[in-house]
Formats: sequence, C-alpha cells, structure tokens
Amino acid sequence: GVLGSGDFARSLALRLVCSGLKVVVGSRNPKRKASLFPAAAEVTFQAEAVKKADVIFVAIFREHYSTLCDLADVLVGKILVDVSNNTEINHHKESNAEYLASLFPACTVVKGFNVVSAWTLQSGARDGNKQVLICSNNQEAKRTIAEIAQAMGFTPVDMGCMSSAREIENIPLRLLPAWKIPIFLALGLFLCFFTYNLIRQVIHPYVREQKNKLYKIPIEVVNTTLPCVSYVMLSLVYLPGVLAACSQLYYGTKYRRFPDWLDQWLQHRKQIGLLSFFCAALHAVYSLCLPMRRSHRYLLIETAVKQAVEKKMTIWVEEEVWRMEIYISVGIIALGLLSLLAITSLPSIANSLNWREFSFIQ
Amino acid sequence: GVLGSGDFARSLALRLVCSGLKVVVGSRNPKRKASLFPAAAEVTFQAEAVKKADVIFVAIFREHYSTLCDLADVLVGKILVDVSNNTEINHHKESNAEYLASLFPACTVVKGFNVVSAWTLQSGARDGNKQVLICSNNQEAKRTIAEIAQAMGFTPVDMGCMSSAREIENIPLRLLPAWKIPIFLALGLFLCFFTYNLIRQVIHPYVREQKNKLYKIPIEVVNTTLPCVSYVMLSLVYLPGVLAACSQLYYGTKYRRFPDWLDQWLQHRKQIGLLSFFCAALHAVYSLCLPMRRSHRYLLIETAVKQAVEKKMTIWVEEEVWRMEIYISVGIIALGLLSLLAITSLPSIANSLNWREFSFIQ
Amino acid sequence: GVLGSGDFARSLALRLVCSGLKVVVGSRNPKRKASLFPAAAEVTFQAEAVKKADVIFVAIFREHYSTLCDLADVLVGKILVDVSNNTEINHHKESNAEYLASLFPACTVVKGFNVVSAWTLQSGARDGNKQVLICSNNQEAKRTIAEIAQAMGFTPVDMGCMSSAREIENIPLRLLPAWKIPIFLALGLFLCFFTYNLIRQVIHPYVREQKNKLYKIPIEVVNTTLPCVSYVMLSLVYLPGVLAACSQLYYGTKYRRFPDWLDQWLQHRKQIGLLSFFCAALHAVYSLCLPMRRSHRYLLIETAVKQAVEKKMTIWVEEEVWRMEIYISVGIIALGLLSLLAITSLPSIANSLNWREFSFIQ
Repeated sequence: GVLGSGDFARSLALRLVCSGLKVVVGSRNPKRKASLFPAAAEVTFQAEAVKKADVIFVAIFREHYSTLCDLADVLVGKILVDVSNNTEINHHKESNAEYLASLFPACTVVKGFNVVSAWTLQSGARDGNKQVLICSNNQEAKRTIAEIAQAMGFTPVDMGCMSSAREIENIPLRLLPAWKIPIFLALGLFLCFFTYNLIRQVIHPYVREQKNKLYKIPIEVVNTTLPCVSYVMLSLVYLPGVLAACSQLYYGTKYRRFPDWLDQWLQHRKQIGLLSFFCAALHAVYSLCLPMRRSHRYLLIETAVKQAVEKKMTIWVEEEVWRMEIYISVGIIALGLLSLLAITSLPSIANSLNWREFSFIQ
Repeated sequence: GVLGSGDFARSLALRLVCSGLKVVVGSRNPKRKASLFPAAAEVTFQAEAVKKADVIFVAIFREHYSTLCDLADVLVGKILVDVSNNTEINHHKESNAEYLASLFPACTVVKGFNVVSAWTLQSGARDGNKQVLICSNNQEAKRTIAEIAQAMGFTPVDMGCMSSAREIENIPLRLLPAWKIPIFLALGLFLCFFTYNLIRQVIHPYVREQKNKLYKIPIEVVNTTLPCVSYVMLSLVYLPGVLAACSQLYYGTKYRRFPDWLDQWLQHRKQIGLLSFFCAALHAVYSLCLPMRRSHRYLLIETAVKQAVEKKMTIWVEEEVWRMEIYISVGIIALGLLSLLAITSLPSIANSLNWREFSFIQ
Repeated sequence: GVLGSGDFARSLALRLVCSGLKVVVGSRNPKRKASLFPAAAEVTFQAEAVKKADVIFVAIFREHYSTLCDLADVLVGKILVDVSNNTEINHHKESNAEYLASLFPACTVVKGFNVVSAWTLQSGARDGNKQVLICSNNQEAKRTIAEIAQAMGFTPVDMGCMSSAREIENIPLRLLPAWKIPIFLALGLFLCFFTYNLIRQVIHPYVREQKNKLYKIPIEVVNTTLPCVSYVMLSLVYLPGVLAACSQLYYGTKYRRFPDWLDQWLQHRKQIGLLSFFCAALHAVYSLCLPMRRSHRYLLIETAVKQAVEKKMTIWVEEEVWRMEIYISVGIIALGLLSLLAITSLPSIANSLNWREFSFIQ
C-alpha cells in the first residue's frame, strides 16, 4: 500500500508494480489522482487501501502525519514504512519515523527508502546509488521491507534499531561533511603563503627599488604558493599516523580511544591528501604555462638584445642549468607518484585492492 | 539442465557446477561432446536431460529452436530459459524468447543471462558486469531463475513481463547510443569553427598579403577552434534545463511531459558536458605545446635579431602582459572546475554522492 | 557464537550485533574481556558459548586451534567458520580451514570472511571491499553462512568446495600479482633504451667532439627513452592476440588450450597497456617541460645573439617547422586516444559497457 500522491508516491508505486508486486494506492481523491499512477496499481480511498495492504508506505510530509489519525483503527498491526526526508539537518526534536511511531503505537514502523530519489525509483536501480538504509525496532518487519527492497533491485542495508532513524534522515541532507575541514585548511594555508609571497615578490621590490612587478600576481605568486600548500598538506596526511603510534606506545595499548581531535584528523587524511594532489597538479599546470606568457617572451628578447649589443657570445651557467634540470625531473616524478596515490583512492579501484596492496602503494 | 554444446553452454554448465548446483547437459551426440563439459556435469541425450531437469537453459541458436519440437512432450511444465542473442538490433519480428514461448505453449519461458558473456561465466562474477536482466510472464518462474542467478554470483534484475524480452535482447547489441548525437554535434561544430578559423588565419592573409601561413593549420587553427566548440557545448548543457523550467512555468505544472526533442536533449547533457571537457582539455594541451614548436622559436629569434639590429632595448607592453597573465590564469581555473565536474561524473564517485552534494558541485 | 577476543573477534561481534543477530562470545576469561565487546553480545566461557550457538566463528590463530580440542564434545554437529589468515603465501602444507576440519571431523567447517578486514567489519560495508568468499564441502552450511554474510551487508561469493580454501587464504596476501611481470618488463625496456640513448646523446658527442652534454641526462635522455618503451609495450599488447589467432587457425579449433606462456601474456595485456599509457603520459609531461628549462633559454639567446652579430635576418626553415607541427599534432591525438583506452579500463566504467562497445573502443 502507498499513501500519498506526490512525486515520490508515484515513482514508488511505479517501481513496485514493475517489480511484480501488487500495489494499492490510498488517496483522498482517488478519481482525480488515478491518472497519475500506473494502470496496474489500484487507486482507492485511504481507508480502503490500508485495509487491503499489510505493508504501507507513508509517502506524505511529516506535517500531515496527524491527518492519518482517522485511520488509526484500520492501521492496527500493519507495517508502516516512513520514507520522508527533512529540509534541514536535525530540524525536529525527534526523527520523522519516531514521531510516526509515537502517533501509531499499534503499528510497526520501519524507516527506509528516504535515501533513494524519485528519479532513481523511476529509472530503476541500474544507475545511481543502489543502497537502501533500513532501521526498525522489529526484526521481522525489517526483514519484510528488506525483501521488498531487494525485489525492487536495491541493496538493503540494516542500520539497526529505530534510534538510527535520525542518522538515516540526515544522510540526504549532508553536504560533503568530510571535505569541510580540509577545504578550509587548504584555503587558510593558501592565504598565508600567498600573503608571504606577495610581500616578497611584489611589495618588497616596489618599496626597495620602485620596480612595478604587479603583473606577477595572477600567475607567478600563485605558482610559488601552490607547492607550499601542497607540501604542508602532504605532511599533515602522514603526521597523525605518527602521533597515533606514539600515543599507542605511550599508553602501551591499542584499545584506548584516541582523543577526539586526533580521531577526526585520522579520518580526514584521504581528503587532505587529495587536496594536496590537487594543489600539486595545479602547480604543474601553472609551471607549464610560464613560457607561454608574453612577459616571458619580452624578458627573453630583452636579454638577447642586451647580449647582442654588448657582443657577449656565451651566457651558459652550468650550475643554473643543472639545478633546473634536476628540479623539473624530481617534480615530474613526485607528481607521477601522487597521481598513483590519487588513482588508487578512486572507490572502484580501492575496492579491488586488498589491504596489503593498498598499504604497499601508500 | 542445459541444451546445447557451444561456448556459452559449456561456460554456463561450468558456472552452475561451481555454484553447487546439479547439472545435466542434453546433446545430440553426448559421447563426443562429454569431454567439453566439466566432469561433474552429466552429459546425456536431449530427451534424457530434459526429463531429469526442472529448469532448462536453451543455449542454442534461434534458428535451431524448431529442432526441439521432438521434445515437446517431455518439456511440458518445465521452465525454459532463453539465453540467446541476435546479431542485429530488431532482427526478427518477435523476440527470441517470445518465439520460443510460441513454439512451446506448455512451458514457462524466462528470458535471461543473455547480457552475460561466456567469458564472464567462466571467470566468475568477480570482474565485469554482474547484472543479469530477467523477464517472464510467470512470477514464480522468474523468482526461481533469480535465485539461480544469485547462487551463481550475479545480481538478478527484474525487468517485468515477457514484452521486455526484445529490450533485453537488444542490450548486448547497442553501441554507445547515448554518445551518437553528442559526438556528431561536436564534429559538426568543430567543422564549422575550423572552416571559419582557417579562412581567418590562413586564407585571408594569403589572399590579402600573399603570406604563406599554411603551417598554422595542424596546431594553431585547431587550437583556436577547440575552445569555441567547448564553449558552445557547455552552453548546450545548461540551456535545456532553462527551457524545461520555462516550459513548466508556462504550463503551470511539472506533470506535463516535455516535448520529445527536449527530453532527448535533457538526457544527453552528461555526454555533451564530457565532450566539452574533452575539448577544453585538448585546448590546454595544444596551448601548452605552443612554445615547443620550431616556428615559435624562429619567430622569437627573428624578433630579437630585428630589435638588436635596430638597438631597441625595450619592447615591454604592459597591457599585453596583463592580458596574457589573466587569460592563462582564468583558463587554468576554468579547466580545474571542469575537471572536478568530469571526475564527479565517474559512476563510482557519482554513486557515493547524495542529490544535494551532486547539485552543489554542478 | 564467536570464539576469540582479538581485534577481528570484536569487530565481528559488533557487526553481527548491528545486523540484528544474537551473539554469544566464548572467552577463557569472560569477566576481563566482556568490556571489549558490545553490550548486546553475551560474553561467557568457551564451552558455554559453544553450547548456545549453532554457527561458531573461530577467530583465533591457527597455532591455537589445538587448544579448542577440550571443546570437541560440545562442538559435535556445529558449523565452524574459519576466518583466519596466514602471514605468508602457502605457509603451511594444508590450508587453515582444512587443518581445522581435520581436528574436528564431527563439525562442518566453512571458510569465509578472511578477505574482510576488522576495519571493514567495524565501519560497515558501505565503503571498501564488500565481497565475502565462502567455500565448504557442505552445501547447507555454506548457504547458512552466505545468509549471515548477506545479513551483515556483504555479498557472499560461492567459491566451491573446501579445496578452494588455500586459494581464499592466499587472497589477502597477494601483492599485485598481475603487475609484477609488466613492471619488470617496462623497467627492463627502459634500461635498454636508456643506455642506447645515453651513448648516442651524451657519450658519443663527448668521445668524438669533447662536448660536455651531461646536463641532458635527467630530462632529454629520459624523454627520448619513454616513447620507445611506450611503443614497444603497446605493440606487446596487440601481438599476443595475433599469435593466439594464428594458433587457432593453425590447429583449426578454438577449443585447444593455448601454451602457458601465451595464456599468461594474454592475461597481462591490460597491465601492459596501462604501463604503455603511463610512459606516454610521462613523455608528454617531459616534452611540455622542455621550454621551461634554463638550458633551452640559454641556447635560444645564444642563437639570437649569433644571428644578430652576423646580421642574418631570417632563419626560417619551412621543412623543420612542418615536421615539428605535425609531430606535436599527431602526438596529442595519440595521447588522447590512449587516455580514452585508459579511462575505459577503470572498473566502474568497463562494467557499464557491453562487449560490443568495449571492443569498438579498443
């Protein structure tokens, strides 16, 4: 049974029908809404629908849950599936599913399907996220819903008892939580190093020798800033592992919890590493662009003209040549190794490596 | 039971045996063919095999289905699994599975396993495509086959009733259907802009000043064409969304179907976007190659010599310097952002993002 | 039931509890260890735990299996799950699971879960490798364990009977076996071509004209070596397919096994191809770095000065210009095509292509 006639209710009914299940839709105005649902689904009044179904998907907003109270009698003993989402993280005191359970104590409530979009339901599970997180205090009901999810082509994931409902409801609302700290860290480091390089390369020559080097800001100053950020970030990837090892040695046990800040840091290592790689890659692109610039061309021609006028035939400085050759060579190798690390952090490749291979590459 | 002794029949028997199922193979010449099958599979005459099995995989070509008519009596009540493929899309009037069902009305026919290759069957499901699409008019039979598919390590996907058989049979024959229109679009745009740039950069200077600039064709003309294609393609990614929104506002409902051309266009956005990124990336590589060219070197030296002979010491044009620095800087940032979009469109990464994160990045 | 109190035992108990199963843990010192386990798991003496459970996970080291012999009486008829790993490939004569089965002939032994890390058990199957390889001589027991694995959120994969246990136990110990031969091949080719180019570009000019060109070693010699390696590797990708076709034509059958060396070679094609792409990409980066070098700058200025002093105004050589333009242009296109091949070899993209599309792209 499906209660509701919004986008989600319609997509859900469609998917259930396509998966070979019998579907009855409960609506307050079945005649007007019938055309919105697939022909194989029976559309009738809410009370009718509830009577005919054992499992009822409640595809209506939390605000309208109380309108179902008229159906309390017929709902006794049924499994209610709460598929709702909130518009803000931790918007209400209790999760939608727990609120539904408190309204209908005679029903078994299961939370699930809220992480699936109406679009995924319509297009089938062949593309997109296929996991359906389920939780309930009733094992039997959870199993029934897991079987329905499997029949619909999704992978049910048991998230334990009803207290996980809040966590499940927050999942579609989260916005890259693991990336927030690393990104602000990278921006902070960038600002610091950028200011330092700006003073050194632009402001200092101007103050001391009145030379206008402002044109260096968009590329050269950025390009000397990026590798600094990249290095510091890379060291921040490996530092917490050392601290964790020290902590374990100090306390003589590996069962003691790490302090919270260290735990957080350990969990953000992958994101910090990827941002370090991103900065290194940008540095490579910026460096490769240097000879394309008009300023490079002008400086080159000016030097040549000066040499020609002074008839100096040779300007070769062996040490500078070697320094540059080795610098570029080592830079390419470092970028190649970082690329390898970045590629193996792609989920589809990381999943095909065992622990020994992963740590070997790292 | 397996009928047939080709590559697919042998791989199927092997996988079934490895999955712990009892297998009997029906062949017209069991003695000669027995050596081709795994030892645990019993190879016998077709009628014998059919009698012993409840589920029979028909691993023979559609053209030979009629040769099974002799077995019609023993086949009564059995489940026949049609695993066949065609050599051309929509080759026959009715799908192979429907043809098989019409030949044996007393059997239950299930379509499935045709999207799995003999190679995947042999090597197990650990690599390669793991989904098995199944359809049938009989729910019970479909469930049986789904269980066998699961036991074999595949993920069964219910595709509904027998009328989907044609669709399932066409899947292994499709050739990047979503890419055809975007690729022709990109080629068309490339040709237009290439012609325009050829006239502007090569033909016009030749006609007006008799200057031979033909050497510009392989790199410089291509390099000015690529960003034009990339820009137009990128705008074509965002335009249909705007049109769709206008259409919804105009009709005052989001339940009205979009016209077909708009629907098609909306579905091709991802491919158009990836081609736009590909052109932008090629433009970056071409641009980076510019200073490597012999012609760049010659022009530089010629300018320097001219300046030296005329004793002009300074050629610095502040405006040109700034224009180039900003142009390169903005180009790198744009390419970085496009790369981010391209990376998040990889299936394994897109699947790990929720809708809010995906739209934030877009 | 879980026997043991190490990391793996604790993570396993946690995951089982979270999946809604009843867990009893057997320990030799239940009071001291109880705090390590989740509250919902009952921690008791080993004999107690074994009596209460039908399925027993033996999460202790192979060396301590014999300590369980005291429990032989209560273990009769139970399913023992061997989750152990070795520290070396093929360390013992018989696999751990077979050794356990020989110690307790009255039990049914199932091998499984050893490919899952304690970390994956703790964090749930949402990230990381989700497949659990299972083998046993008893179909019924295997099915029970497969169901438990599914309830825990993993994908059970049936690996057949107990003789596969050794193979399953070796999986977490393997270290990129498919990459060893291709990497040594690439290194060998690199060394050969590097030596040749070193003699040609550095040693020969020194011996004949006493010119010191040592500065060319880190970049220029490496850069002429990389495309040679890349070409040879690429040809080694396509050669074995031709040899296999010849072999099939010669013997007139495709059912004859290829010789072992050819079979190995055919299976390493993907890795050889990816290394070929890696060398080509490095060659591109090295080439793009050429104009950034100090030596390039010096040579350019020296030429300009020489021309200026001799008042030669034109140095344009049409043939050299064209050669370079075409060389770069073809190089970019080749790298673009190789990138396409590399991207389609990513597991998550390869899985979404059918056989016809894959071979079209190749």
